[in-house]
Amino acid sequence: MSKYSRLALSTTCAGFGILLGRYYERNNGQYRDTSIENLGKSSLTANDFFKDNESFGKNKSPISDTVRSFLPVSTVYASTQISRPPNRLQEILTFGVPSFDPLRPFENHVVLYDRRNRVPHWVFEHLKKEHVEKNDKVDRKSSDFTEDQAIHPFFRSTNADYKRSGYDRGHMAAASNHRHSQKAMDDTFCLSNIAPQVGKGFNRDVWNDLEKYVRALARKHRNVYVCTGPLYLPRLEPDGKVYIKYEVIGKNNVSVPTHFFKVIVMETDKGEFEMNSFVIPNQSFPENTPLKNFLVPVETIERASGFLLFDGVPKHRLKTINGKKV
Amino acid sequence: MSKYSRLALSTTCAGFGILLGRYYERNNGQYRDTSIENLGKSSLTANDFFKDNESFGKNKSPISDTVRSFLPVSTVYASTQISRPPNRLQEILTFGVPSFDPLRPFENHVVLYDRRNRVPHWVFEHLKKEHVEKNDKVDRKSSDFTEDQAIHPFFRSTNADYKRSGYDRGHMAAASNHRHSQKAMDDTFCLSNIAPQVGKGFNRDVWNDLEKYVRALARKHRNVYVCTGPLYLPRLEPDGKVYIKYEVIGKNNVSVPTHFFKVIVMETDKGEFEMNSFVIPNQSFPENTPLKNFLVPVETIERASGFLLFDGVPKHRLKTINGKKV
Repeated sequence: MSKYSRLALSTTCAGFGILLGRYYERNNGQYRDTSIENLGKSSLTANDFFKDNESFGKNKSPISDTVRSFLPVSTVYASTQISRPPNRLQEILTFGVPSFDPLRPFENHVVLYDRRNRVPHWVFEHLKKEHVEKNDKVDRKSSDFTEDQAIHPFFRSTNADYKRSGYDRGHMAAASNHRHSQKAMDDTFCLSNIAPQVGKGFNRDVWNDLEKYVRALARKHRNVYVCTGPLYLPRLEPDGKVYIKYEVIGKNNVSVPTHFFKVIVMETDKGEFEMNSFVIPNQSFPENTPLKNFLVPVETIERASGFLLFDGVPKHRLKTINGKKV
Repeated sequence: MSKYSRLALSTTCAGFGILLGRYYERNNGQYRDTSIENLGKSSLTANDFFKDNESFGKNKSPISDTVRSFLPVSTVYASTQISRPPNRLQEILTFGVPSFDPLRPFENHVVLYDRRNRVPHWVFEHLKKEHVEKNDKVDRKSSDFTEDQAIHPFFRSTNADYKRSGYDRGHMAAASNHRHSQKAMDDTFCLSNIAPQVGKGFNRDVWNDLEKYVRALARKHRNVYVCTGPLYLPRLEPDGKVYIKYEVIGKNNVSVPTHFFKVIVMETDKGEFEMNSFVIPNQSFPENTPLKNFLVPVETIERASGFLLFDGVPKHRLKTINGKKV
């Protein structure tokens, strides 16, 4: 067993540790399964989940014998085989956790990929002056849109999906935010950082303005953090009911988001924070539409997207939100 | 610091271990960040992520000082504070990972909750004869639909959302599959196990037939595993484009799935496996519509849902799929 497989196994077991630990926390011991109660009440921690790994690694791994053996989810099955008093959670999930959406860390940005919609859930960047400054050694033209080989083929968007769809391959982490390194810029052309955007009047105009605004901020501030992603917003229809409706393109049904959000947190030289959050509909806007038209409370984005944004910004140092004093 | 907090912290760090470990695996060391390379190439494993916890626990936790301090995602911020050479992934995510959908293990079923749609992604059950047999001590009438307090209020579905929506609160894990314990049955009435279903002709009829079929299988086989969930399937519209469209109900925009799936794996007394997978549109069907009309290849469900199902079933012991020999 290679050290990488061992690492993967360890971390998978750690994953089970998380699930069980969190579970116990949230239920305050209401759960009746003895083995989980013991986990919480004794001095056991997730550490203990690793103890069996070494001996497990010496047996033949069952991974190669599963229905789709090349998938990381199989390692979860492996981890349930560790000799340990069985618990109900492990029993129920004996034949694999249908799995979570994968986090994809690149050189200079991080993606949580949405496998159902074949676009990101969110993309996170941390930008400083050196990332956004013009650099003759890095050329956008040498970057190609590439499919993300780390995503299972069932859920991977492809260049063919976008072809003749009428939509641009829109960057979530903007290419020009990563001018310090050709590799970092190339990474932004990986399709797991891409979603279908209206070209004229959106991707090439108002969205581009927003990206330029982010770079201006990065030139001026000590640190800039950016979270970008798609939204699928509901609309009231004439029948009096509310619907979510969006186009899907290509053989892989890549979702065309109705809107995109971008939330920006700047850290000033004083170590204070400012936050601006934007939602722009995925449609054509007239030239020079002011960006401030698209400022929305971050809570609106959180409720619509299903996740919380910048929860870790220290409250007492957050000075303005959307230009208004907190 | 209580032992539960310590457990939570440990497991959160384990989480980072997962991310880094998986990341390293997938990129085969292409990544240039030295600290991550060291993680992969030295003998460090996710275990090492725990070593700092004890000393970290003795310092004041920054958790109480964040924007929304009551949320589990904050612990990720905490984990980035561990004294350790910084790496780019941790830097980018300094102020919180927007977070993953939460796994909710109950007494006898497991839910992955979809915070954007306010319904489950999937619900997993493991059923034996003793779970489904009639039991006078357990009464469905004493179970109430309850909101899931473990879900952040932004993303939690409520009874009010369903009220006067015209839809039933449809169980994913069926109540009557958990007759061995009042608590287990009550658990299935938690709204994180519920999605809006058409009542007459669906929830009370064809879907109910499918649930009864599962119980018949559980009475007959050594083990039955069931994964159930919603689907949002695309449709070709008259404009020649393909759309996903679904209603949302209530103040919290709870999604009304267009279809539901149920994948069943039976283990026979010989230790062999049979798999049947169903997709039924969320609409009214005439009485006695045969269930076999709804059999579909499991791959169809996987592609549409964004996750893989029963990946861990040993291939050589899987004898039939949808009634056909493999």
